[in-house]
Amino acid sequence: MKSKLLVLILLGVVALPGQLWAQAPLVFQSDFGLKDGAVAAMKGVAFSISPDLKMYDLTHEIPAFNIWEGAYRLKETAPYWPAGTVFVAVIDPGVGTERKSIVLKTKTGQYFVTPDNGTLTLVAEDLGVAEIRKIDEAKYRRPGSEKSYTFQGRDLYAYVGAYLASGKIPYEEVGPQLDAEEMVVIPYQKPSFDGKAVFGTIPVLDIQFGNAWTNIDEATFKKLGVKKGDLLSVQIKNGEDVVFEENMLFVNTFGDVAEGEMLAYLNSLLNLSFAINLDNFAETYGIASGPDWHVRVQKAAP
Amino acid sequence: MKSKLLVLILLGVVALPGQLWAQAPLVFQSDFGLKDGAVAAMKGVAFSISPDLKMYDLTHEIPAFNIWEGAYRLKETAPYWPAGTVFVAVIDPGVGTERKSIVLKTKTGQYFVTPDNGTLTLVAEDLGVAEIRKIDEAKYRRPGSEKSYTFQGRDLYAYVGAYLASGKIPYEEVGPQLDAEEMVVIPYQKPSFDGKAVFGTIPVLDIQFGNAWTNIDEATFKKLGVKKGDLLSVQIKNGEDVVFEENMLFVNTFGDVAEGEMLAYLNSLLNLSFAINLDNFAETYGIASGPDWHVRVQKAAP
Amino acid sequence: MKSKLLVLILLGVVALPGQLWAQAPLVFQSDFGLKDGAVAAMKGVAFSISPDLKMYDLTHEIPAFNIWEGAYRLKETAPYWPAGTVFVAVIDPGVGTERKSIVLKTKTGQYFVTPDNGTLTLVAEDLGVAEIRKIDEAKYRRPGSEKSYTFQGRDLYAYVGAYLASGKIPYEEVGPQLDAEEMVVIPYQKPSFDGKAVFGTIPVLDIQFGNAWTNIDEATFKKLGVKKGDLLSVQIKNGEDVVFEENMLFVNTFGDVAEGEMLAYLNSLLNLSFAINLDNFAETYGIASGPDWHVRVQKAAP
Repeated sequence: MKSKLLVLILLGVVALPGQLWAQAPLVFQSDFGLKDGAVAAMKGVAFSISPDLKMYDLTHEIPAFNIWEGAYRLKETAPYWPAGTVFVAVIDPGVGTERKSIVLKTKTGQYFVTPDNGTLTLVAEDLGVAEIRKIDEAKYRRPGSEKSYTFQGRDLYAYVGAYLASGKIPYEEVGPQLDAEEMVVIPYQKPSFDGKAVFGTIPVLDIQFGNAWTNIDEATFKKLGVKKGDLLSVQIKNGEDVVFEENMLFVNTFGDVAEGEMLAYLNSLLNLSFAINLDNFAETYGIASGPDWHVRVQKAAP
Repeated sequence: MKSKLLVLILLGVVALPGQLWAQAPLVFQSDFGLKDGAVAAMKGVAFSISPDLKMYDLTHEIPAFNIWEGAYRLKETAPYWPAGTVFVAVIDPGVGTERKSIVLKTKTGQYFVTPDNGTLTLVAEDLGVAEIRKIDEAKYRRPGSEKSYTFQGRDLYAYVGAYLASGKIPYEEVGPQLDAEEMVVIPYQKPSFDGKAVFGTIPVLDIQFGNAWTNIDEATFKKLGVKKGDLLSVQIKNGEDVVFEENMLFVNTFGDVAEGEMLAYLNSLLNLSFAINLDNFAETYGIASGPDWHVRVQKAAP
Repeated sequence: MKSKLLVLILLGVVALPGQLWAQAPLVFQSDFGLKDGAVAAMKGVAFSISPDLKMYDLTHEIPAFNIWEGAYRLKETAPYWPAGTVFVAVIDPGVGTERKSIVLKTKTGQYFVTPDNGTLTLVAEDLGVAEIRKIDEAKYRRPGSEKSYTFQGRDLYAYVGAYLASGKIPYEEVGPQLDAEEMVVIPYQKPSFDGKAVFGTIPVLDIQFGNAWTNIDEATFKKLGVKKGDLLSVQIKNGEDVVFEENMLFVNTFGDVAEGEMLAYLNSLLNLSFAINLDNFAETYGIASGPDWHVRVQKAAP
C-alpha cells in the first residue's frame, strides 16, 4: 500500500510540470514583418509564462494596418488547427484608442486573442461565435509594462494567449462576457446569384502565385449549373472600372490547361478562383484585392 | 509483485503518449512564401495528427515553380539533419497532371515526401537511394479533402509527412515500391576536368550575400593542382555569352582578401565559389544561376 | 523496499532523457535571410546534438554585414526571454580574420554566442557583463567541419549554442575567460541633455511601420520637463545635413493624434520615437538609421 502511494506521488511530480500535461498550440499572426525583434519579443513573453508552449506562426507579413487581409488569413488557416488552439492576431492600427481587447471562442472550440477591430469578422462567420470576452487589462497584462502604450502584442495579447494556451487560466477568467453583436465586424459584399450570374468580391490574392481568389463559395457557384470543362464569362471591376473581361475554362486544377492558359477553379478553400497556369494572373491583368474588387461570372455564350 | 505491475502500467500510460516517445523532426520546404496562411495550414494538419511533432522550416522562399532551386536547397541542408528526419518539399507546378507523389528513403536514413517532379534529383545523388515508394493517395490523404485539387501540400504531403515523422505508420505503409529509375530527375552538367581546366555550372547563388556557388566539388577542383594563394582564371557564360572573365585569388575565406576584392574559395558545401569580400559578386557582374550558367576555371597564366 | 527502488530507477529512466529535463531556449539571429538553407542547416546541427531543444528565431533579416543593427535587435528582444536563454547571433563580415569567437554571460543570466565583432555592444551595456569566455574552437566545433571556413554559424556557433542550451556542457567549459575590456564594442553617441535640449541618435527604425526610434531614454528625456500633450521641436540630421525640422505633439500612443498626424512618444523600449499615425514617417521624410543620424529635441517655443 505504502509503495503504491509513493509511486502515485512520484508520478504526479514527474508528469505534471512537464510536457505530458497537454498544452494547446499558440499561433501568432501580425503585421510586424520579420525584420526586427517584435515577433521574438512576443514569443519570449509567452515562453516566460510556460516553457512548454508549442508556438507557431501563421504569418507576420500582413500588409501594415490591413485588418481585412488579417481577417482573411485567419479564416483561411484556422480550420486546419484543432479545437483548443489559441490564435494571437495583432494588426492594431487603433492602438491607444478606446478599442477593446477581446478573446473569441468559436463554436469549433478555437480561441482568438486580438484587438476588437474587425480582425475576427470572417472566423466569427465561418466558425461561429460560442462566446466573446473582454480582456481585463488591469489583471492580465505583462508586469512592468504599465508605461508602454504602443506594443500591446507583447504586453497584452501574447501574455493572455500564453496563459490560455498553457492552461494556466481557464477562458472564463480573461474578463467579462460581451454580447456577440458588440464585436466590430467589417461589412463586405456576400456572394450572390441573380438567376443568371454569380457575384462576389476578391477578398485576397493567392499572393505568391498571383491567383485571384473570390468569395464565391461552391454552393453559390453551383447555382450557375456549370460543369467541369464549361466556358465561363468573367468580369472583374475595381469600383466602377472594368479591369478584366474574358472567357476561361472551369476545370479542377492547373494541370488541366496548357501552360500560359487561364483557368477558373475551386481553390483550396473551395471558393471560385482565377489563374494562369504557371504564370501570374493578378500581375498580368493588374488585379488586386479588397472589398472594392467586384466579380461577375456567368456561362459564356456558346 | 502487485505494486511492481501497477508501476509498470502507470509508467506506460505516462510515457507512451508524451514526448518521451521520440519523434523524428518534420522539416518543410516550399515555394509558398510567408505572406499567407499556406504554411500554417500544413502545420495545422500535421499538428492535428500528432501534437508532439517537432516542426521546422527549411525555406518557403523558393522562387515560384523553381524545382531546380528546391532540389539544391534540399541537398544543401539535408546532410545536417539526423537519420529519420522527414522532409516535406512542395514545389508543385504540375499539380493536377498525372505526376506521382512519392516518398524517398535515402541510404542515410532520411525521408523526402514530394511530388515526383525532379525535386529529389540532388539528394538522391548525394545521399543515395535506399527505396522509393509511391504514396497511396486513396488511403493517405486528409479526410474531407476530396474536392480540393490545388493544395496537395496541405491535403497530401504534410499529412503523409506527419504520419511518418510521428511514427504512426512505418515507411512501408505509404504505398507500393517504385524502381529508382522511375523517379523523375533533372539533367544537368556534372563537374569535369579536361586536363587543363575544370568545368561546371552555377546551380544556385548564396543569395543573401550574392556569392556564386558552382557545382565543382573539391575532388574535381584539386585536379587543377592549385594551392591557397594561387591566381585563377575564371570564365562564366550564360549559354554562349561570356558574362565574366577575370582572374582572382584562391583563398580559404573572405577575410583573406581586402574589402572589395574578389576571391575564389570552397564554400560551406566544399564546392568552388566566387565572391567579393563584403560586397555582392552576382549583382556586380550580373550573374544568375541555373543549368544554363557555365563555369570554366584554370590556373592563370603567370 | 525492493519495489520502491525499482520505481525510482524506472522513473529515472523515463524522466532523464525526455523533456522533463528542462532545456533552455535557443534563439537564433543572423543576416542569412530566409531564402536558402543556411538557417535550417544551423538548426539541423543543433537538433543533432539534442532533439529536445526548443529553438526560436529572433530575425534572420538583419541587412548583410550590419553588425550595429544586429546589436540593436538583440538589445530590443533579449530582456523578454528568461535567464538561461542562449542566443546565437551570427553577423560575421570578418569570417576568416583573426577575430575571436566568444560567449557572453550577462548579469541577467542570458548567454550570447557570437563572433567578437561588436554584436554584443548594447546587450553588454544594458544587461551587464557577468563573464566573457573565448570559445575553444579546437574542442567545440562540428566534427567534420575542418575544411569549411566560411559558415561558422553552422560549424561553430550553432554547435556551441546547442551544447549550452541543452545543458550538455556548463558555461565554464566553452573556453578560457576573457577580460570584459577585451570585447569589441562599437562606439556611438550616448543620449545627453545640455540644459535646454536632449540629444541622441536614431540607432534603428521600427522598419515595418517606418517609425524612427531614438536612443534617448525616458530618464534623459524627462530632463526636458515635458508632459503629455506638450509640443516638441524636433531636428534630425544625417551627419551635418538637416533632414527634418518640425514640431510635433508628445503623446502616449498613435491613437492620441488624428490619422496622418505626426507624434513623439516613448516606444516599447521606452525610448523617444517619432511617427505618423497610420503612415510611414521614415519614408515620408527620407530618414534612415545608424550612428550618423543625430537628433535634437526641445520644447517648442510657445
